[in-house]
Amino acid sequence: MKIFPSIFGNSFLKKRSWGWLLAVMTLPLGSCEGDFFAPSHFATTLLWIVLLLVAARVSSIVTRWKQPEVLGELLIGVLLGNLFLFGFNGLELLRTDETIHFLAELGVVILLFQVGLESNIKAMRRVGGRALAVAIVGVVIPFVFGTWIFGPLLLPGLSFNAYLFIGAILTATSVGITARVFKDANALQTPEAQIVLGAAVIDDVMGLIILAVVSAMVKTGAVDIGNIGVIILKAIGFLASGIIIGQFAAGKISKFLAILSGGLAMKLTFAITMGLFFAFLADAIGLAPIVGAFTAGLILDNVHFRYFADPTIVSEMQVVLKNAPEKAQKEAHTVLERYAERHLDSIVAPIGHFLAPIFFVMTGFAVNLQLLGNFHVVVVAFVFTIVAIGGKVASGLVAGNVRKAIVGFGMVPRGEVGLIFAAMGRQLDVINAEEFSIIVLIIILTTLITPPILSKLLRKG
Amino acid sequence: MKIFPSIFGNSFLKKRSWGWLLAVMTLPLGSCEGDFFAPSHFATTLLWIVLLLVAARVSSIVTRWKQPEVLGELLIGVLLGNLFLFGFNGLELLRTDETIHFLAELGVVILLFQVGLESNIKAMRRVGGRALAVAIVGVVIPFVFGTWIFGPLLLPGLSFNAYLFIGAILTATSVGITARVFKDANALQTPEAQIVLGAAVIDDVMGLIILAVVSAMVKTGAVDIGNIGVIILKAIGFLASGIIIGQFAAGKISKFLAILSGGLAMKLTFAITMGLFFAFLADAIGLAPIVGAFTAGLILDNVHFRYFADPTIVSEMQVVLKNAPEKAQKEAHTVLERYAERHLDSIVAPIGHFLAPIFFVMTGFAVNLQLLGNFHVVVVAFVFTIVAIGGKVASGLVAGNVRKAIVGFGMVPRGEVGLIFAAMGRQLDVINAEEFSIIVLIIILTTLITPPILSKLLRKG
Repeated sequence: MKIFPSIFGNSFLKKRSWGWLLAVMTLPLGSCEGDFFAPSHFATTLLWIVLLLVAARVSSIVTRWKQPEVLGELLIGVLLGNLFLFGFNGLELLRTDETIHFLAELGVVILLFQVGLESNIKAMRRVGGRALAVAIVGVVIPFVFGTWIFGPLLLPGLSFNAYLFIGAILTATSVGITARVFKDANALQTPEAQIVLGAAVIDDVMGLIILAVVSAMVKTGAVDIGNIGVIILKAIGFLASGIIIGQFAAGKISKFLAILSGGLAMKLTFAITMGLFFAFLADAIGLAPIVGAFTAGLILDNVHFRYFADPTIVSEMQVVLKNAPEKAQKEAHTVLERYAERHLDSIVAPIGHFLAPIFFVMTGFAVNLQLLGNFHVVVVAFVFTIVAIGGKVASGLVAGNVRKAIVGFGMVPRGEVGLIFAAMGRQLDVINAEEFSIIVLIIILTTLITPPILSKLLRKG
Repeated sequence: MKIFPSIFGNSFLKKRSWGWLLAVMTLPLGSCEGDFFAPSHFATTLLWIVLLLVAARVSSIVTRWKQPEVLGELLIGVLLGNLFLFGFNGLELLRTDETIHFLAELGVVILLFQVGLESNIKAMRRVGGRALAVAIVGVVIPFVFGTWIFGPLLLPGLSFNAYLFIGAILTATSVGITARVFKDANALQTPEAQIVLGAAVIDDVMGLIILAVVSAMVKTGAVDIGNIGVIILKAIGFLASGIIIGQFAAGKISKFLAILSGGLAMKLTFAITMGLFFAFLADAIGLAPIVGAFTAGLILDNVHFRYFADPTIVSEMQVVLKNAPEKAQKEAHTVLERYAERHLDSIVAPIGHFLAPIFFVMTGFAVNLQLLGNFHVVVVAFVFTIVAIGGKVASGLVAGNVRKAIVGFGMVPRGEVGLIFAAMGRQLDVINAEEFSIIVLIIILTTLITPPILSKLLRKG
């Protein structure tokens, strides 16, 4: 979407640019403490939302240079999150605002639900074997290289458990970024996208198992086979039952949804509650909520239903065409009916547009550029990033007869899953603050590098 | 909207009814504490959302008996909020969940923004004088009767300040409920609705001034004229500048918005951010956020813009009709174009459908039915409720040549504004726990009584 060229051509906006708006909006946060201007906590949170959404819109200027919007959102997030380096502390409260973090998480849940809606369960099954192969290679290579080769080589003197953690952190693909790039490029239906999505879900399950095993080893010094068995069983059970329910019930549920009266409100509530409920279930049994939301989207399928915003159009068109040939009248009616079909996704979309940018700007916001000041950290992070990218790109080689580079680079971003792993390792005191910084840098680099490369590869195809 | 008749006729849903779903969903909250099933705080909040949305949908069964949906949402909220009386404590954590309360508040902000969008600033100006008259009468009568007559009569022995507070609490109309009833009945464009909306906004400002004066009297024993002047000035200044900006800029902004490229995402972000930003501003200067959101909606106006979900329809229709008479072709094109016009409101609507029910169910949830056990409280509350209703119904008499009863009953609900007043009085220790209970009961009664009466009056018209 080319958004800004036309906006900049508009005289109204030339005078009152979004950038100016953004600057004005950050003012009250930093300076006003008086009685006259005393926003409540609720109102301040509203202002955070406004700030994040406007920032996301401003950042969509990157589409001018053919970069995906999500890259712009990440980068403007990095910018806002590091304003404190220039002495501006007006946004520091945003860092710990729980409501904003909730909305961000909700945003990525809704996004993965939308991605599930747009994914086809049959197409996923067709690529199931290849997705499994990609997932296994993409987990094994970074894990082995991180734990036994580059860990001891770059960070000598750590415990074996620390290397295990670093290896584990390199494994988990974060599907949010990739899914968004595919979505922005209208490429969710390609076999490459389906393989990546399937592999990322399997990845998440495998990463979870590795994390459970490594945590158990760190805590007890030995591995509890029974515990690992439970984790594996519930993870596989969730996905399998999701897919089986999807096979049998998707058609019925979708038909039910299509005929559901009560208008858009009813359909929207049904869809959203199902997405959030599955996200809850996944989290409750120890999987990432986005896995649940994605599964719910798969089950629901992207049902079409007739929706006439104004039903009188049908009768109006009949009156208008009463003197036209009968065949033309019939055909016109068919065109009209097809046009009135709306995808379920189109009802959920406004909520996604509202919340998803909050997630991506906040992801960038968490990046601390001060890390770049430590040369050792930067070098080690850079090498690990090469390993992290190399392992996933290699996994694309087993994707079969598709564009392997797209699959490989689609698997690259680590994102929030890696951050959860890192936070856990820090909590268990297996890795120290410097190693944590390295991991964060790896995650940032894999996250920032993916959108431009992937969208370039997609445009080529 | 008749939602349930057709649903109950559907065999799929007969087997798996919403009620059953609701029951199953409340299970995990109460019982599971094990390691196997351990949802995070995030996931639990997702489940609260699911529960509230499903409850709202279930409650829409009231439309079968021609009651507005909002009444159903309030009542099911009351039901859920009093399950603890039957020993079920699984929902008690919902009472203090800050994220849910944020989403509820956000929901009513979005709702008032939508109402503002659907209101016309010119229509508001036409009824401005009458709205002012209605607001003044609706504030003066309950204030005078509450403070000087029924206060001392029903609750003898209290301080004059306590009577002042009770009088003040009886004044403020809460526009959320009424707006929703008008919206459900598609009656926002009627002069009655415009008068009520205008009067409710003026009411809010007057209530604010009374509250400031009374608080100042309680705190200092005297009235600080300067302080009151500031409050009056900023309240009037906000509204006046909003309306003046609206007069001059609404057309321009709307035109700009209509031509804004970047698709629905851009238009949605622009609209939402403006609504939330004005809500922030209103709150920051001491007004209710919903007043700001409503003002933003007024300024934006409900711009139309052409939106073809699938632009190929135009060319397809041309092909189909190429043998039809030229006049029919042209007319068909006009019909098509008009059909493709979408109101800004229709993009914001899914977010409203998602969040507004959370507000109304949670409003009901806050009601404690145990209050009904105290006979004195019930009797006093009942008499005050009559005064509260009578004063507002009387205000409808000065509404000029419209259906006066609709205006009068439209002003009846007290809702959250009254609750804010009551909380403040409790905080200043001017009123005690029993008087607080009475005030809560008055608010409940005015809130529950309005939807059925108002929708009945609207159907008559």
